[in-house]
Amino acid sequence: MIFSSKLIEDAVQEFSKLPGIGKKTALRMVLHLLKMEKEEVNGFSGALSRMRNEICFCNTCHNISDSDQCTICASPGRNKSQVCVVETIRDVIAIESTQQYNGLYHVLGGILSPLDGIGPEQLNVASLHERVKNEEVEELIMALSPTIEGDTTVYYIARQMSELPIRITTIARGISFGGELEYADEMTLARSIAKRLPIDNYVSMKGS
Amino acid sequence: MIFSSKLIEDAVQEFSKLPGIGKKTALRMVLHLLKMEKEEVNGFSGALSRMRNEICFCNTCHNISDSDQCTICASPGRNKSQVCVVETIRDVIAIESTQQYNGLYHVLGGILSPLDGIGPEQLNVASLHERVKNEEVEELIMALSPTIEGDTTVYYIARQMSELPIRITTIARGISFGGELEYADEMTLARSIAKRLPIDNYVSMKGS
Repeated sequence: MIFSSKLIEDAVQEFSKLPGIGKKTALRMVLHLLKMEKEEVNGFSGALSRMRNEICFCNTCHNISDSDQCTICASPGRNKSQVCVVETIRDVIAIESTQQYNGLYHVLGGILSPLDGIGPEQLNVASLHERVKNEEVEELIMALSPTIEGDTTVYYIARQMSELPIRITTIARGISFGGELEYADEMTLARSIAKRLPIDNYVSMKGS
Repeated sequence: MIFSSKLIEDAVQEFSKLPGIGKKTALRMVLHLLKMEKEEVNGFSGALSRMRNEICFCNTCHNISDSDQCTICASPGRNKSQVCVVETIRDVIAIESTQQYNGLYHVLGGILSPLDGIGPEQLNVASLHERVKNEEVEELIMALSPTIEGDTTVYYIARQMSELPIRITTIARGISFGGELEYADEMTLARSIAKRLPIDNYVSMKGS
């Protein structure tokens, strides 16, 4: 694309660095920004710079945070005996959005994947071990990807923690709510039959 | 979605103001920016602010520009006897990207659409008339939408210019290059048969 304005060209160039944004979409965004008020656009760009420059990671759980301790770790109302182990901050946001979990988190920063060169040293596993040893953690809830790598990571962490007096659980696997049986993959369906629940358990889950 | 960081929340909020960007896509972009270097993100937000704060519109053709006169109007190599009339700056970018047109432009800012309250006063029609009267324009090339409104606008402008000694043309309508006949709409197909071209004309067009 040929632009008659260097300013526009630069802005389009910057936008098209974002994931899933090509030149045409970038131009659409830029022209949209052009129609917005100056204050709004400055608010937009200010929010992005501020976010990148001021963001920290929580010293305890490695979640993103506005200060050294994230709001979740700092909250007195949280159940400090439960720690949910997740891969990324995206997972924290997803679980928080359910508004059903009241414990703490630990962000690993990925899962074990030897082929990609990701071993335990690349992940926040040592600090999880420290936390479990020194804090009042009673349960680790493993909420990792339902893949071979995810399962491997769960087993690795479970072995690391074997000498410590904690309970390790994983999130339930099964058919999605509203999902149709015929579209579920065989592995999920087989597992959900093998791990079937008594009906009263099912009713109480629906009610909660 | 619930974020543990106000900075992230603000950035997501701002991103989701853009067209076609929902909360989830906005979060994806924000997390991508978080992974980028600080300088890169500041470059990104700087380019946006600068673009919005410094952009002008060309006094002559109403195209976006970095100064009072756009690079196209200012260029000495351009054929000043041809003016291509388009709806938006997006059309200027599209035509410029073909690298086949060497004349000037005139951005109307829309097309006549009485139902939406857009009459000749809302468009840059008066300034087009001035340009044709005072400058060395010999041909107006109407490159407007192939719709009823577009055609109405073409006829309106042609009538406005009727006392002036210029030639008014419109861009060719027909089957798109690489398009398949069976998928073309009836109107286009009927018109492209009625306005068929002699074969030597066709060959010279392919060659150019």
